[in-house]
Amino acid sequence: MKIIIVGATGTLGKRVAEAFAQKHEIIRVGNTKGDVQADITNEASIKNMFEQIGTFDALISTSGKGPFVPASKMTGEVFKDGLLDKLLGQVNLVLIGQHYINKGGSFTLTSGILAEHPVAAGAALSAINGGLNAFALAAAPELENGIRINVISPNVVEDSPAYFDAFPGEIPVTMEKVVKAYEKSVLGIVTGQVIKVY
Amino acid sequence: MKIIIVGATGTLGKRVAEAFAQKHEIIRVGNTKGDVQADITNEASIKNMFEQIGTFDALISTSGKGPFVPASKMTGEVFKDGLLDKLLGQVNLVLIGQHYINKGGSFTLTSGILAEHPVAAGAALSAINGGLNAFALAAAPELENGIRINVISPNVVEDSPAYFDAFPGEIPVTMEKVVKAYEKSVLGIVTGQVIKVY
Repeated sequence: MKIIIVGATGTLGKRVAEAFAQKHEIIRVGNTKGDVQADITNEASIKNMFEQIGTFDALISTSGKGPFVPASKMTGEVFKDGLLDKLLGQVNLVLIGQHYINKGGSFTLTSGILAEHPVAAGAALSAINGGLNAFALAAAPELENGIRINVISPNVVEDSPAYFDAFPGEIPVTMEKVVKAYEKSVLGIVTGQVIKVY
Repeated sequence: MKIIIVGATGTLGKRVAEAFAQKHEIIRVGNTKGDVQADITNEASIKNMFEQIGTFDALISTSGKGPFVPASKMTGEVFKDGLLDKLLGQVNLVLIGQHYINKGGSFTLTSGILAEHPVAAGAALSAINGGLNAFALAAAPELENGIRINVISPNVVEDSPAYFDAFPGEIPVTMEKVVKAYEKSVLGIVTGQVIKVY
């Protein structure tokens, strides 16, 4: 299987790429590193990425940033930047990628636990993750040619200790468990699912 | 109670305004009509609205547009316009309004059934509504001075027959039932809730 991993140079994407690379052809996409570079906040850059790569069987996105800002200090501009990055950026990978992906292929996006379990300063990321979850649910029955779409919603992960204090009460999940969720989406049959790793 | 209703000249807002006007002071806000005009996609316009109105006890938003476009034809630009209107527009009413609202006041936003029950061509609205639901959940515990926030998530309503065919299998809800949901949010004690009317 030819698999594009957008965000393959990040904490999560690195592990996902390692796992899939054992049996599959991987194209690692990063902002500045990787086999191909792309900026998911820029539609032309996404198109250019697909043109360089050509057809593919699966796309995994572990990319996208959102702000951690207390609600009392949050501004519309900062909130918007998050929407246009982690939410719209990943949506655009699907909207544009659907015209390049092989029949029976799959898209796997990444949201996060904040969609359901908020933490301080996380309201924008909650909105972003909630939006991504609903998008996958709604896009799945509309995608043509047997294309599937799922979203992985992980808890804080063990490789990100800098975030542990921001998620009180949460037990960081192992990278192995998160990687398995991506395998379920890409190698399994489900579609329109939010695969929760928490 | 002094209640701002943004979208008060729309199908839903009109009924909500009528109901609350029986016992409360209502400021009707519309794009071009109403007591005060505001464009929720423009932060300066929202600020100007609050400056004109001054302090208030509750804000209800029944405003915000999102696109109905099949996934195969959806573009990033059209999707973005929806995010910046119904999602970010309503979020900005809260982010800016929190600095004008009276102690113990409340915000009530409007999402919709597509967050959970998708229909054809509705993926952007699903994402928008899912984002709004998660935002209310996450913003509630962060709002200061006892300010509450909820979101009403209605099914297709009986006053919008033009949409009936787009929601196969759904039984349009009565305007009375939807109006009651806004009363629960504004006059009740709940916060961080998605009040579903379906």
